Amino acid sequence: MIRPVYWHDNTVVMIDQKALPARESLVVCRDYTDVAAAIRDMTIRGAPAIGIAAAMGLALGFLKHGEESPGSEGEILARIRGELASTRPTAVNLFRTLEHMMNCFENCRNDGFEAIAERLVREAQRILDDDIETNRRMGRIGRDLVPRDAAVLTHCNAGALATGGYGTALGVIRAAREAGKHPRVFADETRPLLQGARLTAWEMVREGIPVTVITDSMAGHLMARGEIDLVIVGADRIAANGDTANKIGTYTLALLAREHGIPFYVAAPRMTIDVDTAAGIDIPIEERSRDEVLRIAGIETAARGAEARNPSFDVTPAGLITAIITENGIVGQPLDRGIDSLFTADTKTGET
Amino acid sequence: MIRPVYWHDNTVVMIDQKALPARESLVVCRDYTDVAAAIRDMTIRGAPAIGIAAAMGLALGFLKHGEESPGSEGEILARIRGELASTRPTAVNLFRTLEHMMNCFENCRNDGFEAIAERLVREAQRILDDDIETNRRMGRIGRDLVPRDAAVLTHCNAGALATGGYGTALGVIRAAREAGKHPRVFADETRPLLQGARLTAWEMVREGIPVTVITDSMAGHLMARGEIDLVIVGADRIAANGDTANKIGTYTLALLAREHGIPFYVAAPRMTIDVDTAAGIDIPIEERSRDEVLRIAGIETAARGAEARNPSFDVTPAGLITAIITENGIVGQPLDRGIDSLFTADTKTGET
Repeated sequence: MIRPVYWHDNTVVMIDQKALPARESLVVCRDYTDVAAAIRDMTIRGAPAIGIAAAMGLALGFLKHGEESPGSEGEILARIRGELASTRPTAVNLFRTLEHMMNCFENCRNDGFEAIAERLVREAQRILDDDIETNRRMGRIGRDLVPRDAAVLTHCNAGALATGGYGTALGVIRAAREAGKHPRVFADETRPLLQGARLTAWEMVREGIPVTVITDSMAGHLMARGEIDLVIVGADRIAANGDTANKIGTYTLALLAREHGIPFYVAAPRMTIDVDTAAGIDIPIEERSRDEVLRIAGIETAARGAEARNPSFDVTPAGLITAIITENGIVGQPLDRGIDSLFTADTKTGET
Repeated sequence: MIRPVYWHDNTVVMIDQKALPARESLVVCRDYTDVAAAIRDMTIRGAPAIGIAAAMGLALGFLKHGEESPGSEGEILARIRGELASTRPTAVNLFRTLEHMMNCFENCRNDGFEAIAERLVREAQRILDDDIETNRRMGRIGRDLVPRDAAVLTHCNAGALATGGYGTALGVIRAAREAGKHPRVFADETRPLLQGARLTAWEMVREGIPVTVITDSMAGHLMARGEIDLVIVGADRIAANGDTANKIGTYTLALLAREHGIPFYVAAPRMTIDVDTAAGIDIPIEERSRDEVLRIAGIETAARGAEARNPSFDVTPAGLITAIITENGIVGQPLDRGIDSLFTADTKTGET
């Protein structure tokens, strides 16, 4: 099993996703600042995975600094949280798990340093375990949407590496395979950082699932030739109306899918749905360094003197999404109503 | 002025477009086989430029081999033509200029080696001169479609480097600039071979036209944010009904442009229109080496064990094209009728 992030001996250990697939190496974070740096520079990436890493980072930070000035653990934790929250703006999971951890702290803030620390570490590990279980459930629900010999197009990496270890979009494909189906994956390479060519292809090869890498510009041609049966992607934040922020290029795929009558699915845990964000236009879109576009694998490729843009995400309007696959069921059109009942059902059953 | 290909001292000289922008170097072809290799490995690329290179290659081949077995110059030339024609399948200009050269040979085949050789060399140079003049005319016609401060998105390189030295799509932008307008260019980097980031950006920087490189996956996001005013691309072959083959990714841009109400123009000499090809489905689409997708700048980027696809072109349906800009005027919707009258007008005036 791929374990992109885990707690070990009072450190947070991560697979170095920047080095894959050339090198399979681990990064050991000994303080929360290491975790923050790893999220920022994309040693770890993927909305659920950075949520988990941030939660572990908060626990780690408390463990290292919680005793520094007795009585002000709350302030220390707030500072650590602030730094972790500032790493990346788009994926909502980051803010959600940090908030969850702060609530956990509030519930035990008077229990003394050791008890609080133990509680925070345990809670962060529970977030990891929950994510894996959530993804498996999502997979079991979503696999029915995948035809037996489907050619599935995906974008970026919404796999084990992007999560606790099973995957959202790739989790659905894994689950289809586990159910005896024979999905074949087309992986958009996903410039600028090539998460598709590097990470999705790596995961699929390990799993023995046939994978074909294409440049991001080829999806339309393959759809026009009838070579794609469905599209499944992950999400970084889903607004209350169903508009979905995901890796740059996702919107284009959704538009192409509609044009060709191909189902377009988003697989994401309910945590990724941000009911406090009304619509896609309200989702902050991270713009990263232009060097990621002007260089590839460290090599300058573009002509000197050229500018570059580098929005890391785009927004797919709700109307282009066939359905959202969550661990609580499939949300079909109209998405806003489906999302609403997903959360209303909650209130009724008292889940959080 | 950029001169991507020219005749010099019984050789064909080319800018090595594979080396740009890192190195500005020239390749000297001493026989037609060098020219064929240069077209095949994309030392020279762009539909009009490979047409010119092939014509010069044919003249060069005749010059070197025309005397080998007297009386069979026609057979020698047919063999040379065959080899040059087999280099790349999609751009029609290659076949057009070779056919033109063969007709030229037929008209002087009894004039003796020296006279034939001189005639062929002169004709190949005339094809180059005509291309530049054609592009300038196209630019003057097309520039009226470019608003004063337009943000123009283009794909691949349809510039000086793709032609005799002025450009089709970039020719229109050059002409707009020469007319005192202030176009700004967004250049799709154009994976796998990065002609946008490497060549279009290089040309625009030289010209002092502001250029911003984006990955191919970012166009949709920029259009959704209202940052693109129009799209202009070149073409490798236009079918009689207006369906247009151009660099992979063009179709996606056209679909995005329609979705956002942005004009989508194709700039191409009339030679690129192939009235013998009824529709886009009949255009042969070159599939190049998968290594171009699995590697970038020679570095292996994708996971080992992954397959790849590498169609070099796609087909944009006529219905998505606002207009085709040619040296004989602008062909609007419905394109099939416009194309028809473009060629009917011809017959009337006796042009060829």
